[in-house]
Amino acid sequence: MPDLANVNGTILPIEKAHVPVEDRGYQFGDAVYEFFASYDHRIFALERHLDRLERSLNALSFDPIDRDHVRDTLLRTFHEAGYARAGIYLQISRGVAPRNHAFPSKATPQIIITVRPAPEIPPSVRENGAKMITVTDFRWGRCDIKTVQLLPNTWAKQQALEAGADDAIFITDQGIVNEATAANVFIVAHGTLLTPPLTANILPGITRASIIEICKTNDITVREDQFDRSAMLAADEVFLTGTVTEVLSVARINDHPIGNGTPGPLAGKLFGWLREMAGAPSPDERPV
Amino acid sequence: MPDLANVNGTILPIEKAHVPVEDRGYQFGDAVYEFFASYDHRIFALERHLDRLERSLNALSFDPIDRDHVRDTLLRTFHEAGYARAGIYLQISRGVAPRNHAFPSKATPQIIITVRPAPEIPPSVRENGAKMITVTDFRWGRCDIKTVQLLPNTWAKQQALEAGADDAIFITDQGIVNEATAANVFIVAHGTLLTPPLTANILPGITRASIIEICKTNDITVREDQFDRSAMLAADEVFLTGTVTEVLSVARINDHPIGNGTPGPLAGKLFGWLREMAGAPSPDERPV
Repeated sequence: MPDLANVNGTILPIEKAHVPVEDRGYQFGDAVYEFFASYDHRIFALERHLDRLERSLNALSFDPIDRDHVRDTLLRTFHEAGYARAGIYLQISRGVAPRNHAFPSKATPQIIITVRPAPEIPPSVRENGAKMITVTDFRWGRCDIKTVQLLPNTWAKQQALEAGADDAIFITDQGIVNEATAANVFIVAHGTLLTPPLTANILPGITRASIIEICKTNDITVREDQFDRSAMLAADEVFLTGTVTEVLSVARINDHPIGNGTPGPLAGKLFGWLREMAGAPSPDERPV
Repeated sequence: MPDLANVNGTILPIEKAHVPVEDRGYQFGDAVYEFFASYDHRIFALERHLDRLERSLNALSFDPIDRDHVRDTLLRTFHEAGYARAGIYLQISRGVAPRNHAFPSKATPQIIITVRPAPEIPPSVRENGAKMITVTDFRWGRCDIKTVQLLPNTWAKQQALEAGADDAIFITDQGIVNEATAANVFIVAHGTLLTPPLTANILPGITRASIIEICKTNDITVREDQFDRSAMLAADEVFLTGTVTEVLSVARINDHPIGNGTPGPLAGKLFGWLREMAGAPSPDERPV
């Protein structure tokens, strides 16, 4: 079961997969992406990811792509790699053209896929809850579009690791909580579950949407509303959601314990229901 | 005289130059760059560009690179291409590693160079002055580092072209003028030459620095000070500076004429002096 790539329809070993240096994804970050995870050979929320992909492509005025073709290419590569629990990365760049800021009048979107085993949150972090730092949100103004403008995300993640934490949460100059480097944020405050509303600074997370749906099914009220850093630090629970993250409790933020400093009960329940929705083994059945 | 690329030391035709799909420059925009121009087979301000490159690499904690090696590689590729008036693009990414936001513990910076004929501002734009639009600055918070986080720049440029203008100037929510999509901004207001100071939102332009130097030599006072959109619209002159731009008068902003709506006299003089400093033909001698 090798790690595979697919470059514009051709499947090959990942280390042999290349793109032209004048791919606009490389020189301008002019590319969008999706990251899918599979459970037991089935990709979770495939169509929702493809919906968001189309939204990203439209937002950036990319030449249209054939959704069925993208889905087929993705599935073919995923099946050929053969991993039950895969992490599938799909990147579409505007195309290849001599370097010029203006969009090229004719360019063919480049469709790149890689398939590797899904990255997993380390078991100790699952067990004890994540340690987070907060950093001022210095990302660009359209983080609602899933592009590769990710240098600030990588930088914040690295800063967290160097501080002995697991990840970072972006907070505006005014103290408003946005999201983590690759996950949405939820808090439980005064008995209410809150997550930031979908502004230009918030990625419309697939797992975020699944959790909101799961809450509705289970009569748990969830409000999409802004909250600030103090509300987050004072919350009974803080958790993160994302394709890799799934549902992850936060135990400490800037060395300040959240609740009693251990994973909260609601996050645990939601994680179980999410796995159920994905048709995956529950977090208890399978060591995580 | 072909267009050439150099990939980690190997010179090849530009269309044959490729990078791995897991180059962090491609998946995260985790890369810095410089753009050099030559006049008459000589690269202008080569060492100043390399100074800035080192500053960018340090700011992002890249593994150190050998400056002499980079200079040699650049010059070798430039000379082999053989263009008298070349545009030389140099991009250094953090390296190639399986996709993960955190910086890889071991990664070799990838050094990519392309050499093409230098892009030139169209003669009609030089003659009549540039038409600009203003757009809200929605770039990330470290535009002082020359990275490939350039999607907002390409987007603003495209928006300008679609509005029938030549380029866009980024202005903060509060109305403060930052810079153009690939050039610094100067204005002449009440007899004083002004350009925004070097904050995190302003690229320390090589041409900007050269113009400040030229002004000092010629007893022209230039102040590095913030100014807002109204001051810019009311200015006697507005001009842009950059490696491709050189010195370019702005004639109209959002359809509002600057001064009398034709290229201003100071910009013309500075353009001549800049060409002189570069050991290049003056704008008058050579059709521009």
